[in-house]
Amino acid sequence: MFTNEMTRRMNIEYPIIQAPMAGGITTSKLVAETSNAGGLGMIGAGYMTPAQIREQIREIKQLTSNPFGINLFVPKKFKVIENNIKSANQFLNPIRQQLNLHQRDNFEIPNFNHAFATFMEQIKVVRQEKVPICSFTFGIPSEEVITELKQSNIILVGTATTVTEAVEIEKAQMDIVVVQGSEAGGHRGNFMNDSQEGLVGLMSLIPQVVDSVSIPVVAAGGVMDGRGLMASICLGAKGVQMGTAFLTCKESGANKIHKTAILHAKEDQTVLTRSFSGKWARGIKNKFITEMQEHETLLPDFPIQNTLTQAIRRASAAQNNQDFMSLWSGQSPRLAKNQTVQLLMNSIIAEAKKLGSMDTR
Amino acid sequence: MFTNEMTRRMNIEYPIIQAPMAGGITTSKLVAETSNAGGLGMIGAGYMTPAQIREQIREIKQLTSNPFGINLFVPKKFKVIENNIKSANQFLNPIRQQLNLHQRDNFEIPNFNHAFATFMEQIKVVRQEKVPICSFTFGIPSEEVITELKQSNIILVGTATTVTEAVEIEKAQMDIVVVQGSEAGGHRGNFMNDSQEGLVGLMSLIPQVVDSVSIPVVAAGGVMDGRGLMASICLGAKGVQMGTAFLTCKESGANKIHKTAILHAKEDQTVLTRSFSGKWARGIKNKFITEMQEHETLLPDFPIQNTLTQAIRRASAAQNNQDFMSLWSGQSPRLAKNQTVQLLMNSIIAEAKKLGSMDTR
Repeated sequence: MFTNEMTRRMNIEYPIIQAPMAGGITTSKLVAETSNAGGLGMIGAGYMTPAQIREQIREIKQLTSNPFGINLFVPKKFKVIENNIKSANQFLNPIRQQLNLHQRDNFEIPNFNHAFATFMEQIKVVRQEKVPICSFTFGIPSEEVITELKQSNIILVGTATTVTEAVEIEKAQMDIVVVQGSEAGGHRGNFMNDSQEGLVGLMSLIPQVVDSVSIPVVAAGGVMDGRGLMASICLGAKGVQMGTAFLTCKESGANKIHKTAILHAKEDQTVLTRSFSGKWARGIKNKFITEMQEHETLLPDFPIQNTLTQAIRRASAAQNNQDFMSLWSGQSPRLAKNQTVQLLMNSIIAEAKKLGSMDTR
Repeated sequence: MFTNEMTRRMNIEYPIIQAPMAGGITTSKLVAETSNAGGLGMIGAGYMTPAQIREQIREIKQLTSNPFGINLFVPKKFKVIENNIKSANQFLNPIRQQLNLHQRDNFEIPNFNHAFATFMEQIKVVRQEKVPICSFTFGIPSEEVITELKQSNIILVGTATTVTEAVEIEKAQMDIVVVQGSEAGGHRGNFMNDSQEGLVGLMSLIPQVVDSVSIPVVAAGGVMDGRGLMASICLGAKGVQMGTAFLTCKESGANKIHKTAILHAKEDQTVLTRSFSGKWARGIKNKFITEMQEHETLLPDFPIQNTLTQAIRRASAAQNNQDFMSLWSGQSPRLAKNQTVQLLMNSIIAEAKKLGSMDTR
């Protein structure tokens, strides 16, 4: 009944993708349960080592025989400016104090060549383990990588935030494009336009992308239920990718404090910040974001800032303190529930069927 | 076929409202043609004198016997700080030079008491002329005004940008609430939350408001066609209010340069600025916005800044120069067409019917 170009391509029953959230949220259980329920579970593997990736892929295969996917970050060159890193690190000292953390001056600063080598290793594992679907954020992989993955019959999904980015993804021969609206939680997937103008809401973004590309478009950002699924389909999308709705599920590996924060948040409490990672991302406003706001434009690029703040985020979580954690969330936290993946999927599909069959006008 | 609570209440055939854009855009012809086509035409009367309002209402009544509406700005107290106004005025001198305008030092600074008295006169005209529908932006009118208008059987529409604002509008006994997503062009209708967090995309905003109020919700922001209408309905809205789509119509009074700018713009070329009026508004980025960006946070409140920039905006238009005009636009300019209102309405309805009747899944 929900069959279309995109579900056929991915060989899934329902056009619902569990967003590949990085940082331990996409447990094997979360991924497998989504795929078992007829959607597409995805591993958020951006920060994972090749060995961890291999292990999780194998674990998921034990839990489901349905297709699932994986997401990787395309490494991008970043500026390493010693003084800039030093001052950014100093901005964090008042926060370390509040968490009783020692001041730190030595960091293993990320290195692009190393990040790129890791990425190529990640790709190798994806090919060797024959993950059916591989999506990318923060850019488009090289022609060679795309050709290799296609030779292994892996379906390639790009992430775009503007029409121009979507057109580039189609030109690069990728199979499907996820369009990320301004409503989306977590990191912005932009790779060509980093300005405020690139923050386009899904009501505007979906139809304008659909009119400009011929590959299937998947909508991401603020979609939480059958209403969002059917709205996206009306706008021309073939399916949806949902983050926050899966993040608060019982099977997700998100920290309990993070889940609770979303379950209590309102639609006007999320904000875009680059203070956690150096890349713009949407999360619930907390003390860390507020205290770092004045420094925001002075912070080093992703992933350097991410490295600088890592110990702080971990300590905050360990101390059950939401003040200094990254509480990523989209703009629809009022619609989040703490339920099983199966229940979430059932309710989306039931609601969508109802909307699709009745005279809604 | 599109009949619902909101169309019945307004006594219109289709749940499509032509947004009440201020500043000469909503000509009598635009309003009347929309109403004649089964939608709701609206006068954007925020900047109009009571006499102008009366004249236009009477003119529209000659052109249509269908219901139409009017929008008023609820006056809000604003700070008048002499030095602040003086420096804001000086920021404009380099721009005046580019337009060969004389430098100015004397302005009739808007006065709240005067603005409030005008508002009460506007309300009086609306009652006397029995305009069937009256909507408000920038706030909720006083209990007295609401009671008076209701006694005249005028349907009251509020404008909200967050759930909290929508709930307040319902509490104030208004009949319908327009929710303005972050996609929307022109001025933000916010009156309780002026922060970045209050910029919520429609995909998130509609369902969260629908779940929190029982009055009909109308979606505004980026909606341009039957896809946007049906998506909004899937999300729980009873109808849509469309600005940019009507602005580029042949009957609209928008400056030709403004229409042309929208027809050539892309989804990632609009930006929020308070440099034209002192209140945040979305328009196509141009030289004025870029040159004023560094001063943005230092500018006086609405409507003072609006007064300061008025001569500049007019001179720019008179010189056929789009650099210093306010080119308000929502985030879907790629979907804009220069067509008649009748054609726009026909195509929305045809597309919506197609989406509503076919198995879109």
